Amino acid sequence: MDPDPQVDARSRSGAFASSPTVAKTGVIFESRVFWVERVEVCDRDGATRLRDVVRHPGAVTVIPVLADGRLVLIRNHRFTLRRWMVEFCAGKLEAGEDPQEAALRELEEETGYRAANIESLGGYYTSPGFCDEFMRIYRATDLTPVPTRHEIGEEIEIFTATREEIRAMIVDGTLEDGKSIAAFAKFELLFPEVTKR
Amino acid sequence: MDPDPQVDARSRSGAFASSPTVAKTGVIFESRVFWVERVEVCDRDGATRLRDVVRHPGAVTVIPVLADGRLVLIRNHRFTLRRWMVEFCAGKLEAGEDPQEAALRELEEETGYRAANIESLGGYYTSPGFCDEFMRIYRATDLTPVPTRHEIGEEIEIFTATREEIRAMIVDGTLEDGKSIAAFAKFELLFPEVTKR
Repeated sequence: MDPDPQVDARSRSGAFASSPTVAKTGVIFESRVFWVERVEVCDRDGATRLRDVVRHPGAVTVIPVLADGRLVLIRNHRFTLRRWMVEFCAGKLEAGEDPQEAALRELEEETGYRAANIESLGGYYTSPGFCDEFMRIYRATDLTPVPTRHEIGEEIEIFTATREEIRAMIVDGTLEDGKSIAAFAKFELLFPEVTKR
Repeated sequence: MDPDPQVDARSRSGAFASSPTVAKTGVIFESRVFWVERVEVCDRDGATRLRDVVRHPGAVTVIPVLADGRLVLIRNHRFTLRRWMVEFCAGKLEAGEDPQEAALRELEEETGYRAANIESLGGYYTSPGFCDEFMRIYRATDLTPVPTRHEIGEEIEIFTATREEIRAMIVDGTLEDGKSIAAFAKFELLFPEVTKR
């Protein structure tokens, strides 16, 4: 089998010159947002085993920064968990959609802010053990209020918080959304707060 | 329909006295690690819609702290992404398994360290938009080397890094695993580094 072109050289160690080979064997379940692919993996014992991967189109999340430094968050009802979650606004990518355009769209729809400036802070995989969802993080600034446009099925309330308040929400468990914790962590590293800490 | 007992009062706003009601309608796909449930959601327009949720048994991740303050990480080959990922050790919960026991087990198996002390740092949902996976975070200290026991299908290399090196890996994108970024962020907030920063 040919070497896998998707292997990322940065995180690949010389100790594993031959990484496990993966052969796609097809979609076995399809839903509206995700689908499941069964893949054949040739393990280091030489045996071939079938494993299932949840495939996802990818998503974006946005950290909206107001002029006074406060950040805009939402309380979002998640039918998956039957509870309200504190989060940054986010959404999955539509087919063929530019991620930055998606970020600006979700920001407007969910929080009612239009951003004159938006920049990518990179991204991360939400749960690479069984799923390929990649979450892109954006920082939005120069915000102007616009009407929200919540979709049917979205139950959202908007609020703002200081960075210190968000840190406290991570520590006490009020903020339990992995996407928002990871995005905020990267934002804090890239843009350290200039005031006291 | 009865009020949902699973709603978390902490993050629930008074503005949404009547949150969307959810009726389970059954498992429609089963895999080894996860399964998919189709649920009926009654939206605020009064209509009932079907949505699919990936159900997951939950997982644990461990931040192992060596006596000199360095943390133990792994490079892990993910068949889902066909690439190596920098991560903290982790694993899904087996049926009926105590999460803290699972954390100690994964730590030993994947990194070759036995911990005399382990403590919970809470947890978070990896991707609550479509999946209910809850990731529990542990901090492990008083580490003693033991043999690793990598399972077939696990391709893992162990290394250590300082906190500053991990922050740099988050910033430059070497660390792209959401679980590890969120776990490290909470660890840093709970246990601020005492030395220079």
